[in-house]
Amino acid sequence: ELRKLALFEVIGMYDHSLAVKLGVHFFLWGGAVKFLGTKHHHDKWLSSTENYEIKGCFALSELGHGSNVRGIETVATYDSNTGEFIINTPCESGQKYWIGGAANHATHTIAFSQLHINGSNQGVHAFIVQIRDSDGNICPNIRIADCGHKTGLNGVDNGRIWFDNVRIPRENLLNSVADVSPSGEYLSAIKNADQRFAAFLAPLTRGRVTICVSAVYISKISLAIAIRYALTRQAFSITPNGPEVLLLDYPTHQRRLLPLLAKVYAMSFAANELKMMYVNRTPESNKTIHIISSAYKATLTWNNMHTLQECREACGGQGIKSENRVGQFMGEFDAQSTFEGDNNVLMQQISKALFAEYVACQKKNKPFSGLGLEHMNKPLPIIPSQLTSSTIRSSEFQIDLFHLRERDLLRRFAEEVLERQSLGESKESTFILGGFSNSPSFDTLSGVSTSIAKVPDGRRALVLVVFVGGVTFAEISALRFLSAQEGMAYDLIIATTKIVNGQTLVETFMEKLG
Amino acid sequence: ELRKLALFEVIGMYDHSLAVKLGVHFFLWGGAVKFLGTKHHHDKWLSSTENYEIKGCFALSELGHGSNVRGIETVATYDSNTGEFIINTPCESGQKYWIGGAANHATHTIAFSQLHINGSNQGVHAFIVQIRDSDGNICPNIRIADCGHKTGLNGVDNGRIWFDNVRIPRENLLNSVADVSPSGEYLSAIKNADQRFAAFLAPLTRGRVTICVSAVYISKISLAIAIRYALTRQAFSITPNGPEVLLLDYPTHQRRLLPLLAKVYAMSFAANELKMMYVNRTPESNKTIHIISSAYKATLTWNNMHTLQECREACGGQGIKSENRVGQFMGEFDAQSTFEGDNNVLMQQISKALFAEYVACQKKNKPFSGLGLEHMNKPLPIIPSQLTSSTIRSSEFQIDLFHLRERDLLRRFAEEVLERQSLGESKESTFILGGFSNSPSFDTLSGVSTSIAKVPDGRRALVLVVFVGGVTFAEISALRFLSAQEGMAYDLIIATTKIVNGQTLVETFMEKLG
Ligand SMILES: Cc1cc2nc3c(=O)[nH]c(=O)nc-3n(C[C@H](O)[C@H](O)[C@H](O)COP(=O)(O)OP(=O)(O)OC[C@H]3O[C@@H](n4cnc5c(N)ncnc54)[C@H](O)[C@@H]3O)c2cc1C
Ligand SMILES: Cc1cc2nc3c(=O)[nH]c(=O)nc-3n(C[C@H](O)[C@H](O)[C@H](O)COP(=O)(O)OP(=O)(O)OC[C@H]3O[C@@H](n4cnc5c(N)ncnc54)[C@H](O)[C@@H]3O)c2cc1C
Repeated sequence: ELRKLALFEVIGMYDHSLAVKLGVHFFLWGGAVKFLGTKHHHDKWLSSTENYEIKGCFALSELGHGSNVRGIETVATYDSNTGEFIINTPCESGQKYWIGGAANHATHTIAFSQLHINGSNQGVHAFIVQIRDSDGNICPNIRIADCGHKTGLNGVDNGRIWFDNVRIPRENLLNSVADVSPSGEYLSAIKNADQRFAAFLAPLTRGRVTICVSAVYISKISLAIAIRYALTRQAFSITPNGPEVLLLDYPTHQRRLLPLLAKVYAMSFAANELKMMYVNRTPESNKTIHIISSAYKATLTWNNMHTLQECREACGGQGIKSENRVGQFMGEFDAQSTFEGDNNVLMQQISKALFAEYVACQKKNKPFSGLGLEHMNKPLPIIPSQLTSSTIRSSEFQIDLFHLRERDLLRRFAEEVLERQSLGESKESTFILGGFSNSPSFDTLSGVSTSIAKVPDGRRALVLVVFVGGVTFAEISALRFLSAQEGMAYDLIIATTKIVNGQTLVETFMEKLG
Repeated sequence: ELRKLALFEVIGMYDHSLAVKLGVHFFLWGGAVKFLGTKHHHDKWLSSTENYEIKGCFALSELGHGSNVRGIETVATYDSNTGEFIINTPCESGQKYWIGGAANHATHTIAFSQLHINGSNQGVHAFIVQIRDSDGNICPNIRIADCGHKTGLNGVDNGRIWFDNVRIPRENLLNSVADVSPSGEYLSAIKNADQRFAAFLAPLTRGRVTICVSAVYISKISLAIAIRYALTRQAFSITPNGPEVLLLDYPTHQRRLLPLLAKVYAMSFAANELKMMYVNRTPESNKTIHIISSAYKATLTWNNMHTLQECREACGGQGIKSENRVGQFMGEFDAQSTFEGDNNVLMQQISKALFAEYVACQKKNKPFSGLGLEHMNKPLPIIPSQLTSSTIRSSEFQIDLFHLRERDLLRRFAEEVLERQSLGESKESTFILGGFSNSPSFDTLSGVSTSIAKVPDGRRALVLVVFVGGVTFAEISALRFLSAQEGMAYDLIIATTKIVNGQTLVETFMEKLG
């Protein structure tokens, strides 16, 4: 499995479109058959997938529903007379959209559809539908169109699919999560609809792992290019006819590139750790992997785009030339923050998971486990009252700071949510429409930082703001607000010798003006 | 003139490549003939430029020299026997590079070259060279190649030009700044080589004005697209089968887009003010226009890229589709931070100009004038000790804060530079290699903010951090460091009721770890 991941890394460095096309075929289509199907699906489809006799794609998103795929409109109904499912696109917003591989090459797809049994909707289920014959002709009752030119990834043939009452055999339902009997009875071991839905998204985890990994290597390549340019390019001289100065000898240029270089080291450790977690996964670790891969996916892809932009600019005009790659990468990798879970939406989900874990453990008085909050089982780390330079540089101290911060943020976030709930708001509306001052996605970020900080020897570019002699919560909160701003390039650590209780005026102003 | 600018705005909204191609022809080529040439050049070239009989380009940058164009290697020598200049590319790094219009269409170019007279180099001068005949055939002793595929602006035929001892008549020297007599004597009214060089860059000012303006309208278009999407797109519902929520009803989505919307209002006022300054320019206002157009160019183009990225992501997958424009704009407008003066380099130049003005006025004890520092002629603005919500919302108060901040930054920056100079560093090396904690480009940004804040009714998204009860310089400096980080989306204003002198420990740590 590690070898397969390594193969993808290498292909992705060479051509992202090719890696995505292969990823769709092997990880999304193949992964769905494997994880959502049972033995007879494996026997029937896996070897022809391996040797590319058939080409698969993965049709989950629709024009009307991308982030909220649980609301898709494609419908599957069962016809017990013929033992077939009928897959239908009931309206224009129900057309499958963005389906990688669908526009030109795929012969089969996983058609995610709402399963209607005797008039009641059992939720999203996965069905195998053939969309082209082996000569590449589109099958009857299937319509396909290309999604058109994109700002990157044009090597991937993203397509739109409409199903016009397509009939497929009952066996094409991928039935590891739920099944329909020949007579049309719905059977599922998982009674909870939320859990059932979550099970269908399992194939996406490996996708997120590969996205994380590729975001890191592309940052590495672009930094290598920009730093090499800075080590050969000279501009301006100090004395009238003196030699020109190397770009990397300019302090401003160092400050633009070197913190990004430090960060990519940390990211690299984090991505490797995630890869190992994935490869060594157990049923117990699945939830942790889901949460961590989501958090890393958002953090690493955003950081990648930020790094690419800076490297592009640091190469001047040459950064614009496609053959110099850096600029080209920007178009190619931008979609990473959107597909396989939009970054902002993922961040919200992680907040919810951390919140649930926090509340559950507090309630049951049991230790935290699995989501990186284990440090909260230990007593509060102590910040020494004498902050020497060597203390501040020690990774132990730095991790303590991350931990302190995560504790504080989670506690305040939970308090705020619980308070709103106690005032009668539903849990859903609290989360969705809350607009917290302790914004969930920011809480999350700190969770991620914690995890990254825990990676052995992983160091991130961070700014230490040390208030000696005490700091008020208001001051902390002001800094927190700042660091929550999108695009903030640095981690912000607040250290203090003591916390002065008091003034929350600042927060009040910020809420009004922010 | 305003109509011409308006024409460019409209064309640029439709197709940036077309606007750039026209800009090169009219503003760079045409502007060079007009500003650097004299009557006989105007008579000979301007009308055929206006009616597109000839097509001009502007060959300043070379492979080896982009930001530091004063170091270009193309050489012009005078042959008094024939009354001709000989233009020559002496080495590969001296090839003209990135020349818009050169690869396919231009018939003439301004060849910037080092003018060698009797073995001594008089510096960069501008010469008219024909590079194609009217049928589009490349002229003898000229070689041209295409710069290749770019990540945007592929509608512009950027090219590379080599001159192989091309002979041109003496009259083709654009001689408003300096001339060479038929016998080969060098004549210039401007004795100072720095000033002479500056005069040659005059045609670039109008280019910067149009870049500013277009950065603003593209931000507007992309925000209009993203906000409209957010007003029609629904995702997720609060109750199980309830209606889905509009994206713009999510507080996180509001926080992503609305501060950018507020900012584009401020930017729009700023760009309009600049346009009017340019149209009403006088010889006295030229320096101010140069500085302000440089500062706005960097600020507005960076903000544009930031806005485009956020709008792209806010449109989800649809942001990737070229026909939806937002993503496409990212490739098209990215070069704006590089061409007609790299943003970082411009920022350094502005710092130098502000520093020079500051030191000169202090030394001669004369009032500040022209560079937006006039507020420093007035007494220090007073921050009321009672900060009510209406005070904080008043634009007067906000501008006072900008002013206070600019004063403080400039003073510290000047002190640091002067101290280094007093320790024996040369002025040039102090600036170029200093690596100030009061980073020049950040000082500059605050200068720009000031100017923007002064625009009538211009409001920027800003974060007010109010320390009631006193703040130390260390705390201010920590916040300053944060806000200097590239990509910081907010202006950061520090208000306090009194400044507590003391603790600079924070700064020490930050310097070591930053
Ligand atoms: C190149 C490419 C390839 C793809 N390949 C495939 C594929 O092979 N198969 C497949 O099934 N799909 C594929 N997709 C679809 C992809 O998964 C979706 O685009 C993605 O899930 C986002 O959905 P959306 O585009 O509808 O955005 P939307 O859901 O419309 O989101 C738009 C914006 O709204 C914000 N938002 C959404 N919900 C909330 C909320 N609750 N709170 C706050 N903000 C919110 C998001 O952050 C986002 O910025 C692909 C997409 C692209 C671009
Ligand atoms: C699409 C496009 C069209 C163009 N059209 C034309 C045209 O028509 N005519 C023409 O003459 N030119 C043209 N140019 C060239 C353009 O003006 C140059 O690319 C620009 O001046 C930057 O120079 P450079 O590319 O050599 O970058 P470099 O000078 O190599 O700069 C690279 C990086 O180094 C940094 N840097 C440079 N000096 C310093 C310093 N002293 N301190 C700190 N950092 C520094 C910069 O910030 C930049 O990030 C065009 C360029 C592009 C991309």
